[in-house]
Amino acid sequence: MVRDDFHDRLAELDAGLVVMARTVTDMMGRASRALLTADAELARQIIEADASVNQQRNTVDDQVAELMTIRPPMAGDLRFMLAAIRITGDLERMGDLAKHVAKITLLRAPGAAVPAEAAPMFTQLAEVAVRMATKMTQILGTRDQLDATQLSLDDDEMDALRKRMFAKLFSDWPYGVEAAVDFTLLGRFYERYSDHAVNIAHQVVYLVTGDVQLRD
Amino acid sequence: MVRDDFHDRLAELDAGLVVMARTVTDMMGRASRALLTADAELARQIIEADASVNQQRNTVDDQVAELMTIRPPMAGDLRFMLAAIRITGDLERMGDLAKHVAKITLLRAPGAAVPAEAAPMFTQLAEVAVRMATKMTQILGTRDQLDATQLSLDDDEMDALRKRMFAKLFSDWPYGVEAAVDFTLLGRFYERYSDHAVNIAHQVVYLVTGDVQLRD
Repeated sequence: MVRDDFHDRLAELDAGLVVMARTVTDMMGRASRALLTADAELARQIIEADASVNQQRNTVDDQVAELMTIRPPMAGDLRFMLAAIRITGDLERMGDLAKHVAKITLLRAPGAAVPAEAAPMFTQLAEVAVRMATKMTQILGTRDQLDATQLSLDDDEMDALRKRMFAKLFSDWPYGVEAAVDFTLLGRFYERYSDHAVNIAHQVVYLVTGDVQLRD
Repeated sequence: MVRDDFHDRLAELDAGLVVMARTVTDMMGRASRALLTADAELARQIIEADASVNQQRNTVDDQVAELMTIRPPMAGDLRFMLAAIRITGDLERMGDLAKHVAKITLLRAPGAAVPAEAAPMFTQLAEVAVRMATKMTQILGTRDQLDATQLSLDDDEMDALRKRMFAKLFSDWPYGVEAAVDFTLLGRFYERYSDHAVNIAHQVVYLVTGDVQLRD
């Protein structure tokens, strides 16, 4: 039965995406812990872990390419395969961004990249980012459209946090330019990480319904 | 003749990618001019132009999806179609990054986002970025592997420029935190823009040879 084999392999692909999503969620959680505790050893582990994400992406992408040569896919299966190609791109990038957080941590260790007074802000930023990635991972499994649409609400929370960060930077910043640059880049990395989680949720809506979400 | 029609449509897809690449190259050129001359009107035009890049992406992606339902593609054609899906993602993002440069310009207008003393650095940054995007556009047309591989050399120049920018920020920065934040984000936008041009060159190598380039 070609059809069953085909769908077994689609299910395998799906499972591969979920594993990759769990990996990058875990990486950002640990990268944030390393950042907030100035833990150079943990930061080094994150930087090393990124290679396995890239490997996972290649594996999933190869699986898609192979599946596509078997026969012209039905519309729903095709949408899933096209979405999978875009999702692995987003997930790979989320791994890169966790690595970037780890690299700044390592650069400033044994000192802290984040001034103590700004640490609660980064704790919140990390919480929102990891919560969004956790939801995104679930959505990949359940393909729940409503959950996928609601992920944008968490993204509004991320945007609000980023605005507060800029207000902080521009009103009263006693830590000098180097810390301001770290602060700016770290904020940007968390924001982009969350954007990719939202992109993936949009891809889940696309693969279920065929609707393309409006892009920025 | 199904085969001819199929290849006509692949050629059309290819042409669509080149048009999109020209658009985002032109956008970053104009965004840089707007930045360096504090031209709010030009910045507004770039921000509006981004919607057409998103539209172009949807069109190309739809063409790929349609082509894939016709028949199981040959290996080379399949690689091209998979690469096209990734390339439209990179090109769309390059449009976003040109828009981000324009947004900072607009935010600070009629003042300049870049202090006069730092302007020559941004002139260079813009030159390298636009040169890389121009080469990337050519490579999409010629599929020359050697040119694609050499694009990494221009990226080294971009990295060197970014290092000089950080040195500037960290040694002697009399312009305050707000200007430092703009400077950091603008530098990041140009760097990412160039990274996407390199990604696209890697995709051209993949579609010609089937080789996946090592990822960061």
